[in-house]
Amino acid sequence: MIIVMKAGAAQKDKDEVLRRIKELGYTSHVIHGTTRDVIGAIGDERGKAALQALDSLHGVENVVPILQPYKLASFEVKREPSVVRISDNVAIGGSQVVIMAGPCSVESEEQILESALAVKKSGAHILRGGAFKPRTSPYSFQGLEEEGLKLLAKARDLTGLPFVTEVINPETADMVAAYADVLQIGARNSQNFALLKKVGQLGKPVLLKRGMAMTIQELLMSAEYIMSEGNQSVILCERGIRTFETATRNTLDLSAIPVLKGKTHLPVVIDPSHGTGNHHYVAPMCYAAVAAGADGLIVEVHPDPEHASSDGAQSLKPIKFDEMMKKLRLFADAGGRTL
Amino acid sequence: MIIVMKAGAAQKDKDEVLRRIKELGYTSHVIHGTTRDVIGAIGDERGKAALQALDSLHGVENVVPILQPYKLASFEVKREPSVVRISDNVAIGGSQVVIMAGPCSVESEEQILESALAVKKSGAHILRGGAFKPRTSPYSFQGLEEEGLKLLAKARDLTGLPFVTEVINPETADMVAAYADVLQIGARNSQNFALLKKVGQLGKPVLLKRGMAMTIQELLMSAEYIMSEGNQSVILCERGIRTFETATRNTLDLSAIPVLKGKTHLPVVIDPSHGTGNHHYVAPMCYAAVAAGADGLIVEVHPDPEHASSDGAQSLKPIKFDEMMKKLRLFADAGGRTL
Amino acid sequence: MIIVMKAGAAQKDKDEVLRRIKELGYTSHVIHGTTRDVIGAIGDERGKAALQALDSLHGVENVVPILQPYKLASFEVKREPSVVRISDNVAIGGSQVVIMAGPCSVESEEQILESALAVKKSGAHILRGGAFKPRTSPYSFQGLEEEGLKLLAKARDLTGLPFVTEVINPETADMVAAYADVLQIGARNSQNFALLKKVGQLGKPVLLKRGMAMTIQELLMSAEYIMSEGNQSVILCERGIRTFETATRNTLDLSAIPVLKGKTHLPVVIDPSHGTGNHHYVAPMCYAAVAAGADGLIVEVHPDPEHASSDGAQSLKPIKFDEMMKKLRLFADAGGRTL
Amino acid sequence: MIIVMKAGAAQKDKDEVLRRIKELGYTSHVIHGTTRDVIGAIGDERGKAALQALDSLHGVENVVPILQPYKLASFEVKREPSVVRISDNVAIGGSQVVIMAGPCSVESEEQILESALAVKKSGAHILRGGAFKPRTSPYSFQGLEEEGLKLLAKARDLTGLPFVTEVINPETADMVAAYADVLQIGARNSQNFALLKKVGQLGKPVLLKRGMAMTIQELLMSAEYIMSEGNQSVILCERGIRTFETATRNTLDLSAIPVLKGKTHLPVVIDPSHGTGNHHYVAPMCYAAVAAGADGLIVEVHPDPEHASSDGAQSLKPIKFDEMMKKLRLFADAGGRTL
Repeated sequence: MIIVMKAGAAQKDKDEVLRRIKELGYTSHVIHGTTRDVIGAIGDERGKAALQALDSLHGVENVVPILQPYKLASFEVKREPSVVRISDNVAIGGSQVVIMAGPCSVESEEQILESALAVKKSGAHILRGGAFKPRTSPYSFQGLEEEGLKLLAKARDLTGLPFVTEVINPETADMVAAYADVLQIGARNSQNFALLKKVGQLGKPVLLKRGMAMTIQELLMSAEYIMSEGNQSVILCERGIRTFETATRNTLDLSAIPVLKGKTHLPVVIDPSHGTGNHHYVAPMCYAAVAAGADGLIVEVHPDPEHASSDGAQSLKPIKFDEMMKKLRLFADAGGRTL
Repeated sequence: MIIVMKAGAAQKDKDEVLRRIKELGYTSHVIHGTTRDVIGAIGDERGKAALQALDSLHGVENVVPILQPYKLASFEVKREPSVVRISDNVAIGGSQVVIMAGPCSVESEEQILESALAVKKSGAHILRGGAFKPRTSPYSFQGLEEEGLKLLAKARDLTGLPFVTEVINPETADMVAAYADVLQIGARNSQNFALLKKVGQLGKPVLLKRGMAMTIQELLMSAEYIMSEGNQSVILCERGIRTFETATRNTLDLSAIPVLKGKTHLPVVIDPSHGTGNHHYVAPMCYAAVAAGADGLIVEVHPDPEHASSDGAQSLKPIKFDEMMKKLRLFADAGGRTL
Repeated sequence: MIIVMKAGAAQKDKDEVLRRIKELGYTSHVIHGTTRDVIGAIGDERGKAALQALDSLHGVENVVPILQPYKLASFEVKREPSVVRISDNVAIGGSQVVIMAGPCSVESEEQILESALAVKKSGAHILRGGAFKPRTSPYSFQGLEEEGLKLLAKARDLTGLPFVTEVINPETADMVAAYADVLQIGARNSQNFALLKKVGQLGKPVLLKRGMAMTIQELLMSAEYIMSEGNQSVILCERGIRTFETATRNTLDLSAIPVLKGKTHLPVVIDPSHGTGNHHYVAPMCYAAVAAGADGLIVEVHPDPEHASSDGAQSLKPIKFDEMMKKLRLFADAGGRTL
Repeated sequence: MIIVMKAGAAQKDKDEVLRRIKELGYTSHVIHGTTRDVIGAIGDERGKAALQALDSLHGVENVVPILQPYKLASFEVKREPSVVRISDNVAIGGSQVVIMAGPCSVESEEQILESALAVKKSGAHILRGGAFKPRTSPYSFQGLEEEGLKLLAKARDLTGLPFVTEVINPETADMVAAYADVLQIGARNSQNFALLKKVGQLGKPVLLKRGMAMTIQELLMSAEYIMSEGNQSVILCERGIRTFETATRNTLDLSAIPVLKGKTHLPVVIDPSHGTGNHHYVAPMCYAAVAAGADGLIVEVHPDPEHASSDGAQSLKPIKFDEMMKKLRLFADAGGRTL
């Protein structure tokens, strides 16, 4: 931690900072600058709010953290990329680009089986579908709940595809984990720390979505919550951040891919459906994500988008998904990945 | 709902839109424009994802909602401002500006009692203090939990001040409600719908904070979640939104006060401590909030900010809080409010 | 400047950083941390892109600037608040809150004279009105240009009010300066450095608006452009920043007032008309701005907003402006200011 | 334009809206909804601020524009993609992906010639380099001005590469146009309408960068400014928008590519150097941009980034640029484009 003193700070202010640094168990080191002094506090600064609070001392201009606040998610602990195993045949983070596809919500047996067969045929590796739906409006469809989980399991039996589904409440997390292959934490729960701790205690891989106003560092801190409970199988998912632009539902931040690859060993997948909110933009963003080095994609596919209970506007029809997958193979090849 | 057709859309595309509108139980009405047609779908559009999904039909440019998606929070249901009663002596939403003050976290008996006595002496009406803390880092102090609730109750016994404290998990919500006078939903849980539903079922007033990337409409939708479960005692709280500006921790959106006053009967309070993240900026933002018509403030006050377990940098010392309160009275007077 | 090395950076990488620091004329100072080293580069860092570019060296994690990059606008050069004199009777930055009011655009002699008389009667100190209009669309009204300046001068003759008007092009800046009392730099030109240099060479006070995506530090850098050309009479104006919220045209950042007051001696005024984009929200934001310590306001007033050539939706009618001014006096009093 | 009336608006309020619509020369059409009425105003709404101002009328909830406000940039005027010719050998918008590369600033003859030779060898089609530099700080290097233009021309003579350089002032625009092949409008001047009009009158292609807080619609409106002056050779450039994320200098919005391709016939290029601000992230974003369908890239390449006068941190060394170009060919192939 670096403490920057104000220009012309009094000696007694500096002495007080030095006293506090010592009191907190850190070693201090002063640099005398041309217009002001800068004090280094040496030691592990993770979780030390008390150090940050030094900026309320008299004569202090600001306090600059030096260390990244996450550890298990960082290269300090693990140098090589993590490969998260989902099933005997599927793992995320290796040379294969993994495709998760399916409808936003599970609506009926017919709908989910039809979707599963279609995405499998086009080459998807994992089925997606929501049984518990976090909807902005209490008057919107809230999901089929356990019935939806049973239908997803049925689709898995039929196709062999493992499935990912969202968990929205610590109280129902065990039930979801009893059915699902991958537990999804949605963007709106990305800092629901009670839920993060809970899925950290379950033995299933977690797909952690970035929140709409979440920095990349905060995304890694939320991963750290899960990992610090003992679950290292975390997959990070960029799904668009909220900006001033309204031409897309969110702004898909594809630069998060190389940024995350430089900071963490965890795999990174992209959700272009929520990221753009418009099915016309999904395919180009799939190609771009894979070109940028994503380890996987999660894509909304619905057999009848105009009648979907949720997110119809951003869902691909199976035929469009199939076209996209064909072209995607070319980009995966160009990037030296398999699909 | 207004469906805007593309310039030159084919007749069969328009016919399909009309057919779907009818199928969904709405009446349609076409306006023939100079370059394109516009189709109105008449009927209650709340919760109708299917209408929005019409924008994936061929020939449709976009779909424009007309109705606000919330109802219980709107003036449609209640014209006069709601006054939320907290205790025999305290109610929010009337002529009195209500001040909630206290430390970010409950740290010890001495700390919370000292804080409670200090803020009471300066004229605060409600004590604030966190027992369950949603912290970005799993390595940061997570709160004293039930022990913290007991200390808050002790401070209430000592001072007569009711208290507000955060609830972070549906599983512990009943326990918090057994102690607290007001349940706070924090910014990071503002779209944790499982938690919103839960506090909607408890008989205690709820202080609902706006999320960092939450529009005002979404804030009202989250209030609607609580109200649709039967709890009408909701207090809205603006606490800063996330923007590109880094000089403050968040950007406090004071225009939310007149905007909300034009859309809802619910009371509106402001949190300048989280809104700015810097104790130097708290007092001016308190004055501004009251001048703009806020019904209350929630302010962090700590007897020893430099040693606080959390949020020291944005906490006022009791003496600064006292100065602020004295000046605040003048602004409350100017606005025709009592303090 | 602080250079943070990567954990485990090689000695030769550190040596290279030290060599470069010396080459650039700075003194270096190393702090050996527990997991990484931090190197201070001592000396004036303003304008030194070369120092910042050290972060492309091998082994460097990042480079943290310590000094503020502005000087003339800072307290380093001038400790007491600047008072910018506009005319014999009007100065901004002293105890008086200065009100600038008038229409967005000058549209006709009748309109500007009527506006000037009305705002003067309600107590405004300066007339505002646009003769050159920077409009988003080339098909929108672009202003009366020199004819508009003449009409503003006529209104000044009639009422005694000095006027502020926008300058949008270095080529016409001299012409505008020949008429106007205050030159306005609009938000869209806030980093038009050619224009900033030009108005820095003219002998008229400058009202500098913050750009829509401009940090407070960048606003001060743009002021520095004007001041470094010799013109110290700069008035800073917050007029709303662009965020994800669409309920208001922009998000008015009132915390910019205390932030700026802590960083610069220059006066600060607020534009709640552009800041909110809606006449319903203007009065509460005027009260809030003055309560937060603003030195002045700039408010759009139009005798017939529904027929205005621009910005009708955010303009106050004279009767509403008059009501606002009456109530504003109470808030100015509460803050110990005159109006 | 659609005018949404408030629920329960009085008949006389509706009559007044109808009267105004007629007065403005539009035809009105009323839809009676279940809770409120909606009125369509039929006619060309471009440039009609008076229509928008109807939202200040009593009883009006809001006014919703239907038409896009741009025309020349839209498919209404031209259905097929525009190909902007730069030289005998280079055109942007066709099947070839066009690469512009070179240093941020022209610093010396040696530096620009070395850069030009290097980027040409790796396959770039156009040289980039700044002679007039819009810098945030007045104390930073401002460019070599006309001397820089001469050096760029010398580099063109040597390599045969046409060059793009920034124009920052209407007063010096003719001079820049006398040397340059493509005129760049930088992000900070993207709504400097005086400058847009000026380059619209010059006979050279214009590379128009998106501003940091500019919506895609506003980018098209700025293109419309240039085109409405008679210059149809406009190339749009996405270079990152400003968001809350600080891990990158800006957030590169690659979804702008498919969004723009759906709205305009103008070619679209991407600037990953400014878009990320970090040379480590440039190559992945180049691949992603081409995969998403970009017509070209503009990339900063500097022979000695650690000594660059500007933007060293985001510049590629020639050897890294060469590696990137080799891999980029694979992605261009995958997308059915040549390089």
